[in-house]
Amino acid sequence: MKLGKVTLVSAGPGALDLLTLRAARVLGEADVLLVDDLANPEIATLAPRARVIAVGKRGGCRSTPQAFIERLMCRMARRGAHVVRVKGGDALMFGRAGEELAALRHAGVPVEIVNGVSSAFAAAAGLGMSLTHRDHCAGVTFVTAHRQDGSAPNWAALAATGTTLAIYMGVTRIEALTATLMEHLAPTTPAAAVQWAGTPQERRLVTSLGRLAADVRASGFASPAILLVGGAVSEAVVTADDAQRAGPTVRTDRDHAARRAARAADLAVAA
Amino acid sequence: MKLGKVTLVSAGPGALDLLTLRAARVLGEADVLLVDDLANPEIATLAPRARVIAVGKRGGCRSTPQAFIERLMCRMARRGAHVVRVKGGDALMFGRAGEELAALRHAGVPVEIVNGVSSAFAAAAGLGMSLTHRDHCAGVTFVTAHRQDGSAPNWAALAATGTTLAIYMGVTRIEALTATLMEHLAPTTPAAAVQWAGTPQERRLVTSLGRLAADVRASGFASPAILLVGGAVSEAVVTADDAQRAGPTVRTDRDHAARRAARAADLAVAA
Repeated sequence: MKLGKVTLVSAGPGALDLLTLRAARVLGEADVLLVDDLANPEIATLAPRARVIAVGKRGGCRSTPQAFIERLMCRMARRGAHVVRVKGGDALMFGRAGEELAALRHAGVPVEIVNGVSSAFAAAAGLGMSLTHRDHCAGVTFVTAHRQDGSAPNWAALAATGTTLAIYMGVTRIEALTATLMEHLAPTTPAAAVQWAGTPQERRLVTSLGRLAADVRASGFASPAILLVGGAVSEAVVTADDAQRAGPTVRTDRDHAARRAARAADLAVAA
Repeated sequence: MKLGKVTLVSAGPGALDLLTLRAARVLGEADVLLVDDLANPEIATLAPRARVIAVGKRGGCRSTPQAFIERLMCRMARRGAHVVRVKGGDALMFGRAGEELAALRHAGVPVEIVNGVSSAFAAAAGLGMSLTHRDHCAGVTFVTAHRQDGSAPNWAALAATGTTLAIYMGVTRIEALTATLMEHLAPTTPAAAVQWAGTPQERRLVTSLGRLAADVRASGFASPAILLVGGAVSEAVVTADDAQRAGPTVRTDRDHAARRAARAADLAVAA
């Protein structure tokens, strides 16, 4: 029997048109689609030939064990199928691609990777800001607040880098997270939260580190959400529409009135 | 006269099919295309209606002053044009998007942003590795070694984060860079370099931090190249083909023989 293969396809942040052209082509060729629940389920419409299997696991609730997913991919590829494993954001940032690549190689299954847009980039687009404005920083750090072994990232070092911090999985324990960050960063440090970045449900708020936890709670933001912290966030623009969607607690430490007026007239992030 | 608009479009790492579907659509609608020299010039084929203007500036050699680009965008949009500003990688990471967004807002010009794939993600795909393998790190930091004011990033803090370091613009002064990093990280720290990531000219080498500078020089890697440093890079896979393209100096600190054999048989990053 002809050996199949597995392609790890990055689904991007949600909107189907943020898939790459390559991802769309590969989806059209798929025999089997394994879809995370962080990926937009409509992605299956791009894979008309494929049998679709949902293999999601959302923080804590492991509906599909990782080992099962890996065995399933290997088995189907060995039977000759082109298996497309769809992963939210970019397949190579968070989300166990490392384990899956190792398992596939160990099993001798050919594997390809198709990159995509990670949700923190979509969050920045929603906020109309560069992640790395050179007046503010030398770069950006993407970090998960939720580690497999329960350990915390080195927040002291992360704060000291001066890079913009793009924090994934940070909302559940946001009070503890922001308290820790404020041991190293001023409460006035610009901060923002974007829920469902890059989807039609996207909600944004711009505030300060000191107010971030309270504003996120008051606005009812929940997972999945990206937190952004650092000087570059001072360039973020909040529209009246954002404020309405986020709720009445949205505040900014800077006077965004001029920007807001400019943006209300003009800034429309491609939707 | 009807006001036009500007769309910042992320060109991704080079291959045209790593553009998003949205980017392709927007390019098709463009009246004017302003193209960086880090973007693939063939992108103009997707913008059949557009007048194409090259506005590149490569490290040091400023062929087109930033202020000129900003004035040009504003002027053309005010005359009613849909101006598409193409930026390599993701428009919101490095590359002055912050200044351009501010200038456009100041001028009252509507602006949209279309995300894309940054070249470090393509580098990781080429190496068949996750940027954030959870056995090794809590995240990844994208940092430029080349700051506008000549200052250095806080390498001590960056090293202490334990995140994978994805270093842009690091090749020119790689000896000094790796020497500084080795004040904080062991010479045995896994490291890799990928030149022209995500393009047909892509070249990769996997080595250690201690050997990175010498290997990069011996292999003749030059800008644009991504350097990757950190434990997660131990998962990178080098093929015999990589070694041949990179030159005879490619070494690995781990025995990749088993992986190489597996990959030679199978791993083909979608090209």
